[in-house]
Amino acid sequence: MFKVTFKFESGEDIIVFAASGENLLEVARKTNVAIDAPCSGNAACGKCRVKLMGGQLESPKTRHISDEEYADGWRLACVSKVIADVEVLVPDIASAYKSRMKAADLSSDEELRIFEEVKNRMEESGIALKNSLEVVQVEMDVPSLDDTMPDVERLERAVAAATGTSKVRVPYSVLRTLPDKLREADFRVQCVVRRTPKDVFVYDVYSMDANVRAGGLVVDIGTTTVSALIINMLNGEILAKATAGNGQIRFGADVINRIIESRKEGGQKKLQDAVIKETINPLIHTMCEFCGLEPEQIYRMCVAANTTMNHLFAGINADPLRMEPYIPAFFKSNAFFANDLDIDINPDAHIIIAPNTGSYVGGDITAGTLVSQIWNRPEFSIFIDLGTNGEIVFGNSDFLMSCACSAGPAFEGGDISCGMRATDGAIEACTIDPESMEPSFSIIGEKGQKAVGICGSGIIDVISELFRCNMISPKGKFIREGTRIRHDKYGMGSYVLAFKEDADSVKDVEITEVDIDNFIRAKGAIFSAILTMLSSLDFDISMVDDVYVAGGIGSGINMKNAVGIGMFPDIPLDKFHYIGNSSLAGAYAMLLSGEAERKVYELAQNMTYMELSTTPGYMDEFVAACFIPHTDTSLFPSVTQVNL
Amino acid sequence: MFKVTFKFESGEDIIVFAASGENLLEVARKTNVAIDAPCSGNAACGKCRVKLMGGQLESPKTRHISDEEYADGWRLACVSKVIADVEVLVPDIASAYKSRMKAADLSSDEELRIFEEVKNRMEESGIALKNSLEVVQVEMDVPSLDDTMPDVERLERAVAAATGTSKVRVPYSVLRTLPDKLREADFRVQCVVRRTPKDVFVYDVYSMDANVRAGGLVVDIGTTTVSALIINMLNGEILAKATAGNGQIRFGADVINRIIESRKEGGQKKLQDAVIKETINPLIHTMCEFCGLEPEQIYRMCVAANTTMNHLFAGINADPLRMEPYIPAFFKSNAFFANDLDIDINPDAHIIIAPNTGSYVGGDITAGTLVSQIWNRPEFSIFIDLGTNGEIVFGNSDFLMSCACSAGPAFEGGDISCGMRATDGAIEACTIDPESMEPSFSIIGEKGQKAVGICGSGIIDVISELFRCNMISPKGKFIREGTRIRHDKYGMGSYVLAFKEDADSVKDVEITEVDIDNFIRAKGAIFSAILTMLSSLDFDISMVDDVYVAGGIGSGINMKNAVGIGMFPDIPLDKFHYIGNSSLAGAYAMLLSGEAERKVYELAQNMTYMELSTTPGYMDEFVAACFIPHTDTSLFPSVTQVNL
Repeated sequence: MFKVTFKFESGEDIIVFAASGENLLEVARKTNVAIDAPCSGNAACGKCRVKLMGGQLESPKTRHISDEEYADGWRLACVSKVIADVEVLVPDIASAYKSRMKAADLSSDEELRIFEEVKNRMEESGIALKNSLEVVQVEMDVPSLDDTMPDVERLERAVAAATGTSKVRVPYSVLRTLPDKLREADFRVQCVVRRTPKDVFVYDVYSMDANVRAGGLVVDIGTTTVSALIINMLNGEILAKATAGNGQIRFGADVINRIIESRKEGGQKKLQDAVIKETINPLIHTMCEFCGLEPEQIYRMCVAANTTMNHLFAGINADPLRMEPYIPAFFKSNAFFANDLDIDINPDAHIIIAPNTGSYVGGDITAGTLVSQIWNRPEFSIFIDLGTNGEIVFGNSDFLMSCACSAGPAFEGGDISCGMRATDGAIEACTIDPESMEPSFSIIGEKGQKAVGICGSGIIDVISELFRCNMISPKGKFIREGTRIRHDKYGMGSYVLAFKEDADSVKDVEITEVDIDNFIRAKGAIFSAILTMLSSLDFDISMVDDVYVAGGIGSGINMKNAVGIGMFPDIPLDKFHYIGNSSLAGAYAMLLSGEAERKVYELAQNMTYMELSTTPGYMDEFVAACFIPHTDTSLFPSVTQVNL
Repeated sequence: MFKVTFKFESGEDIIVFAASGENLLEVARKTNVAIDAPCSGNAACGKCRVKLMGGQLESPKTRHISDEEYADGWRLACVSKVIADVEVLVPDIASAYKSRMKAADLSSDEELRIFEEVKNRMEESGIALKNSLEVVQVEMDVPSLDDTMPDVERLERAVAAATGTSKVRVPYSVLRTLPDKLREADFRVQCVVRRTPKDVFVYDVYSMDANVRAGGLVVDIGTTTVSALIINMLNGEILAKATAGNGQIRFGADVINRIIESRKEGGQKKLQDAVIKETINPLIHTMCEFCGLEPEQIYRMCVAANTTMNHLFAGINADPLRMEPYIPAFFKSNAFFANDLDIDINPDAHIIIAPNTGSYVGGDITAGTLVSQIWNRPEFSIFIDLGTNGEIVFGNSDFLMSCACSAGPAFEGGDISCGMRATDGAIEACTIDPESMEPSFSIIGEKGQKAVGICGSGIIDVISELFRCNMISPKGKFIREGTRIRHDKYGMGSYVLAFKEDADSVKDVEITEVDIDNFIRAKGAIFSAILTMLSSLDFDISMVDDVYVAGGIGSGINMKNAVGIGMFPDIPLDKFHYIGNSSLAGAYAMLLSGEAERKVYELAQNMTYMELSTTPGYMDEFVAACFIPHTDTSLFPSVTQVNL
């Protein structure tokens, strides 16, 4: 056994022991050291870079590490073997997905306004913001020798009288402590109950003077990022909000790699633990601390996630999803309770999962469609969710059609050498001076924050600007020379946004031709999907009234630049609306409103799924879209380049 | 810390470390070394004898240890303190309650016939032996690209079609493994389901060629003894049967001491663990091994127990039961599932608990009343359950009245110096020659088994014979001299049934005046309860048509002798019927038959409870009954003594 020391830029060390010959990435995974490996350890993406600080590693050179970098100690973890005691530095960028998990400062949060809007739009469209949770106060007679009714019957009768129902259910979790609670409260209590047409379910019993809080948990499980809210179920107030990287990321960046990992010995449990125990539960505790709620005071949970994430979250074999005929275990189910899944909230809390509507169109989209409101208007609109999978829904109040395309993690900074999520240190917007070719950019974070990497909206800007400035060809190759443009020995060009000394990073923050190529494929997948879907319905772009864009790409997305690179159709910019994380917002609506929940089930049921991979013409459209902006420039009349 | 070595007659050693000054009984409890302490460690019962084999103990003399015995090393664990390394022998008799836990040999089991009778009587009284569990076979279409319905929906639809219901519930435990199971079985499966008027619940999915077994678990939790069955839910066949001492015994012999123990720090969990993890779960595994069932194949459980045992089993505060106004947490509840209580069977298995009808008349009695069938006849009958509490139900098809009296553990061998449960080595029947005063007895076990102690039915015989032979007075004091009769230095008389050299015990098997006194109180409590209840209704003994006697006292009970000591009323012997463990049989009926279950709820609802402690005259009746056979001998005309 050899001693492996993982060192971090923060100064923290994690020490473990590994057998001779063990793969360094595997050692990191076992130790819960987050090293991003979007390609799941196939030496394909080059993101799992670590720096040898002492000892030895057996590690071949790869195209991702230059000679200079290799001499400097840089290695790819996924091809490195432990052969002696060793110390490696894990740079922040290699674990950028596992961002600091902290509750958001609600006062300054942009997205909060989006949730207010969601509530308003729900009410405008006639969906009552009412759910089945409520607090009822009941006063019972104190037992005596003449009135010896058992505690539970006494409570049941009192709640039945107070709620006007005949059937009251008191679960074990409440019964277990009932004698003490009733006596402490002198038989005058407040109950958190759930009222359904069939019965009233008692979640909790408080004394009359207690400050009763009925919390709800909203979780959007993205392939890359997990976002969560704790809300007050009684009025919809957002009590806390937090975001973290999906702990599953170390098992691969995309759903296919995750499924493959889940099929290995013990893998299903590992993947489930990674998202629940390592991601969701810590988020819950962080948020509870922020808003002063006990986790047991969270009585209901809504999850929105793509179909694979749903399955891995529930610990259910997702393998049939990736193999013909691509069958999910469930679209919807009432079978999930917090207790079963080891979620640190009230054990009886029901977990509603936004319904899937296809193997690759999941609850994130059905919930998102609800908040996009495209189902509520006679005009035709497009709803696009830019995630690791790109999903597109088109339709109006009469019909809805959905499709999914594999965009890869580029929109969230994956597959991009300096890519990162839209958190502190990310370049989120950029312009380039056509003459000097010098960039100006804005960085997420406090004033003075230096660049760590670049997030999705920043990449759109950079590529759009590089093209506008005639610095790259429609194929994404560098065609001008400059101090910030360089080529490595393989001829691969790159553009440096921030040199190492100006950045908060151990290397230059740059964008390479490989990055641009990866991004072009991602945007090409989206645009060709839109076009294929519209033409299959004999629609053309001019008939689209509105485009609703959602996803973790960030509110900083510049629609003009997104059109400029050929990602979105070239229609008037005022038709584009960024609606934030619509998956999270949709789950929020489902939790808050019984009617919204039913509406999402209805939408899921009525949504037609179009399988792009078997649609004739899609591949041709995709290839044609892998240019800036497109091989057919007539589709993008507004896109122009500077005249040098 | 000192080393404490518990040595057993079996040759086994258990070694633990204890702090200086720790109480030896407490050390044993913490270590799960079963040393009976019916009095809960108050030096009152003298049952926790251990023998000092080496090292030192600080241990005062007590009235329970003679000088000779003290010199020989005998100590009471409950008054002994650890002051150095020490070795103590725990004699078998001190842990007799914790009998070998083994599945019974069904072929020779007397009680099996009782269960057959229970089934017959149920059917005769029009109660269908049908429960809600069944096995349905369903064949689904194999999914294809043209038929991409999710697995769970496919199963739900198929089960709905097969059962003719519209609502099918598939719980998480089934959903979790559904994709694998369906594919392994090629979408042709057998399901164990529960059919209710509302829906069909799917417990398990098997392939078509699997040998499906739908097991049910029946448990009678006695204060002293726990008995259990595994049955085939489809036909009522008894697949396994086993019995063990209630692991809670080390926390006290009676319910009051247990409740007090449960209120100590962590006590509720300890008491619950003692009965579930140390008693019921091992019984389940023993029985499953015996009959080749997987614990997960047990889909439903029925528990019958007194009210306190119910509460401690469920981990619910039982303290209000022992304090005015004596309020239970529940009479009945649907809230119990195996998963919540950590019972090692199918996690979704519903646990039905036979309903309590009063603080001291529990589910053991309501279930037992069902099988006694006294509710099904116009004639008036008495049903007596001889347990640590004695419960009596009187009535007919028009009314039922119940009461409870504290008999103590004497009927099961507790509170008796050489008492033990009716297992191997117990003297179960006895006659004494009036001339020679020599005993003849039969011992439970294989031929050649020597006496270890004496069980309830044996004690009845011995006391009855001692009285018949004029060896003891009506007050239970020895009045003849003989080689087997001796007196200690305090003047306490005793009668030796088997001298040490003829016994399988480290000391003589004898019955003392204290034992007789304890037993007289027990029988006096029963008889006075019967008389008080009858007279409160203006009935007298002659109007009683039948007496059904149940309880762990053993099928060997000699009714003539029971009348002879004044325990049962002096009516013709053919009116007495021993019906075995009616609590277990009742729980068996409830599990097997939905109608029987409903009937028990109905009986519980309609049973009137009479509180003896507040009934005028009961104490006088009790005092008058504490003689052999009674102060008023006219009540027992048939009881005679030999003329010497």
